[in-house]
Amino acid sequence: MLTTTDPATGATTETGLAPTEAAGVAATVAAAGAAAAWLAAPANRAALLDAMADAVEADRDALVAIARSETGLGQERLTIENGRCALQFRLFAEAVREGSIFETMIDHAAQTPIGPGPDIRRTLVPLGPVAVFGSSNFPFAFSVIGGDVAAAIAAGCPVVAKAHSSHPLTSAASFDALEAARRAVGGPEGLFGIVYGQAAGTALVQEPGIAAASFTGSLGAAQALVAAIEQREVPIPFYGELSSINPLVVAAGALPERAEAIAEGLAASVTGSGGQLCTKPGIAFVPTGEAGDALVAVLADRMGAAAPSVLLNRRIATSFGEIRDRLLAAGAAPLATGLQPEGAGFAVPATVLQTTAAELDAELAEECFGPLVVVARYDDAAQIDGALRRIPPSLTPTIHLEDSDRPFYEALAPAMTATSGRVVFNGFPTGVRVCWAQHHGGPWPATNTQHTSVGVTAVRRFLRPIAFQNAPEWALPEGLRDGDVGTPRRVDGILTL
Amino acid sequence: MLTTTDPATGATTETGLAPTEAAGVAATVAAAGAAAAWLAAPANRAALLDAMADAVEADRDALVAIARSETGLGQERLTIENGRCALQFRLFAEAVREGSIFETMIDHAAQTPIGPGPDIRRTLVPLGPVAVFGSSNFPFAFSVIGGDVAAAIAAGCPVVAKAHSSHPLTSAASFDALEAARRAVGGPEGLFGIVYGQAAGTALVQEPGIAAASFTGSLGAAQALVAAIEQREVPIPFYGELSSINPLVVAAGALPERAEAIAEGLAASVTGSGGQLCTKPGIAFVPTGEAGDALVAVLADRMGAAAPSVLLNRRIATSFGEIRDRLLAAGAAPLATGLQPEGAGFAVPATVLQTTAAELDAELAEECFGPLVVVARYDDAAQIDGALRRIPPSLTPTIHLEDSDRPFYEALAPAMTATSGRVVFNGFPTGVRVCWAQHHGGPWPATNTQHTSVGVTAVRRFLRPIAFQNAPEWALPEGLRDGDVGTPRRVDGILTL
Repeated sequence: MLTTTDPATGATTETGLAPTEAAGVAATVAAAGAAAAWLAAPANRAALLDAMADAVEADRDALVAIARSETGLGQERLTIENGRCALQFRLFAEAVREGSIFETMIDHAAQTPIGPGPDIRRTLVPLGPVAVFGSSNFPFAFSVIGGDVAAAIAAGCPVVAKAHSSHPLTSAASFDALEAARRAVGGPEGLFGIVYGQAAGTALVQEPGIAAASFTGSLGAAQALVAAIEQREVPIPFYGELSSINPLVVAAGALPERAEAIAEGLAASVTGSGGQLCTKPGIAFVPTGEAGDALVAVLADRMGAAAPSVLLNRRIATSFGEIRDRLLAAGAAPLATGLQPEGAGFAVPATVLQTTAAELDAELAEECFGPLVVVARYDDAAQIDGALRRIPPSLTPTIHLEDSDRPFYEALAPAMTATSGRVVFNGFPTGVRVCWAQHHGGPWPATNTQHTSVGVTAVRRFLRPIAFQNAPEWALPEGLRDGDVGTPRRVDGILTL
Repeated sequence: MLTTTDPATGATTETGLAPTEAAGVAATVAAAGAAAAWLAAPANRAALLDAMADAVEADRDALVAIARSETGLGQERLTIENGRCALQFRLFAEAVREGSIFETMIDHAAQTPIGPGPDIRRTLVPLGPVAVFGSSNFPFAFSVIGGDVAAAIAAGCPVVAKAHSSHPLTSAASFDALEAARRAVGGPEGLFGIVYGQAAGTALVQEPGIAAASFTGSLGAAQALVAAIEQREVPIPFYGELSSINPLVVAAGALPERAEAIAEGLAASVTGSGGQLCTKPGIAFVPTGEAGDALVAVLADRMGAAAPSVLLNRRIATSFGEIRDRLLAAGAAPLATGLQPEGAGFAVPATVLQTTAAELDAELAEECFGPLVVVARYDDAAQIDGALRRIPPSLTPTIHLEDSDRPFYEALAPAMTATSGRVVFNGFPTGVRVCWAQHHGGPWPATNTQHTSVGVTAVRRFLRPIAFQNAPEWALPEGLRDGDVGTPRRVDGILTL
């Protein structure tokens, strides 16, 4: 039987849930495959996505209560996260109805410089059942009711979720909400599946019926899944969001007016959700000199006064201490430590360490899940540029600046854009807006893909093109026929609305 | 020193070209990386692509003559292939100017159901230097002046080509044309690179500066490159177009009027370019009964009278005989053999084998490069459906039918679309139109990617998104600023032209 642990107390209880056995995994994937035909109709997908939004809103209070007891995350944070899931499902429903995400193109038969060209019509179709591995730090938005599930359904792919071991009861309750939505719109049984336990997760990615896997979590866990996938006869795409240090740069021009506000915002960004966000700023580049000293002093003060953060599970809490010790051993100096935790739960103190941009290297840029930030003092842009090129790429770097800092930014822009997927100005990287233009991804090891896991374009991960050559009209999918189909398409090279 | 062999005679001569040593590979990749900044400007890419079209046209006669002597392919085929390269470069130049391929999106700051959302602006940027591995069977269009090079340049990625061992002199002359184009538009040295020899190819994909690799060739060679890539510290995407049997189905309704024309077209498609096209129909499903017998008789007649095909190299010619023998051993019956080759070159006879749809399996569906087709007689659609699900997926299946065959097609459509990337009606799969809507790809082992290698959308393989959050206007790339930039963009969720 699976257990669940309250991170606030460390108390472990039985869940009544059993690890899914191999036969159960196979049956779940087979049922998902059988449900794919119903999802082939975009209208069914859109209706289902709207119903999913309604269902997670309807179950909000129960879901938040269960997730609180399994994650230690706060009521407000979890309530917003539940709202984000509903927003996400509705945005994908809209996108399915609008239809651009299917990239439909028609080239009529025509003479070309090398001879007659046939009629070619292309659209994107679903890959097939998708395995979704949720993350510990987003029990809703990157788990069973999360963005990968929304994107897969929008693409027309049935979903089999692997319940995260840190929140099995939240996963089960989330799955119940999905099932309620499915029944509400008459979707076939098996369209949503869920499996429990690490062995079931490995078996899941090896099932021949699984067409893609998406994952948000640690590099180590990803590598284990990749190794399992490499044993498949037929390879499948594996979309991993993995590891990110998210450097934040304070330009000199921002200091006179905003040093205190930046320091306070940074402390909030580092400690929010216990510092367990993949976009948490892990390094803060601050100018040497008095104005920078003042910012660092405020940061140290706020972090020193911060309450302990309850981390998601024992492993993360243990890692936090180990990584902090490695950073100290690598030469980072302790600068401030927040209030010490009491009791048996998985709480750790807010922590600020310090180094210099000139010394910063991959070792000092190790990602630490939890309320820890390394301040790196710099003399000039060249020192930051060098550091950015020595440390691993990130999901998102941040810069605080004024217009007067333009030359400084321009010196850094090549490295900031080459090593990330989203550059944040005068804000904080935590909080990822769910919208069309969002990109939540970045060069390895931030992700292993050229696609986002947040925002509408995440759907592309679960689609593949198919073309029809000289097909009679009756053999074409509706959206590929001539005439106005109400969807943006590219016809004979011209984009038409 | 590298040698080259004339497949028509088997005669081998010195090329004067040396295998590229490890230091040379590293220097070539470093130079490509340094040239990336010039390609960052879309206007430079478009001008370069137009110049590349002009250059390959200017060198057409010389290129065709060299390629003839190295490939055994005919004057007309090679001349058209050269024209296809020019067309391809110009189409990508147009696409760069039009700008949709960069998928630009702007979401202005706005209130959302879960709070204020920041301004987010997204576009696609180049991955970095791309390694292109050409194929033996397209000395131009899938080699140094081919589609992968066009797509990479359109994406803004410098290219390092690996010269194919079957046509080193064609590769060198093609590279000279690229260099002439580069000089004509003032592009930096190193933007195009080329390496020679198998060891250099392995070293190329392991260079840290290479950001992606594209490959057209055999599954075995691809697996060797994948193994080399897996040893990299930082993984890169590997786009492989690999293996395809391309089943062709003749529906009963097509027989009364078109049996002879279909048989003649099939014989031409199987023997054209020596049967060495990745889209060559390798299996032909023909109805049992007299009308089907008549079609098969015409096919056997035309193939039996066909001249021998000169294959591209000794390895392919040897494989042809080995695979034919394996197919016979697996139970296929010999049906017709064309004229026997004479002399020392790599020629083989046209070959027709026969089996039944009920017996067809993966063993009988082994891809055979060369003028060989397996006829599979069928009683009903269910037999074909079963066979399509037993054999590996393909780039493209074909069906010959009349409107009266609609129920027959509808019974086969699920399997045909699930196991391919392009369904051809009443034609032949050889000949792939270069246009926006083309999809040249398919489920594994046809390709290992959800992207095409022919047509404009091939560019997506070499691009990655980047987003800017709350950036001051001066920090945004031009195409992401407010106002009309002359490019289709999605603004606040609405696609605008």
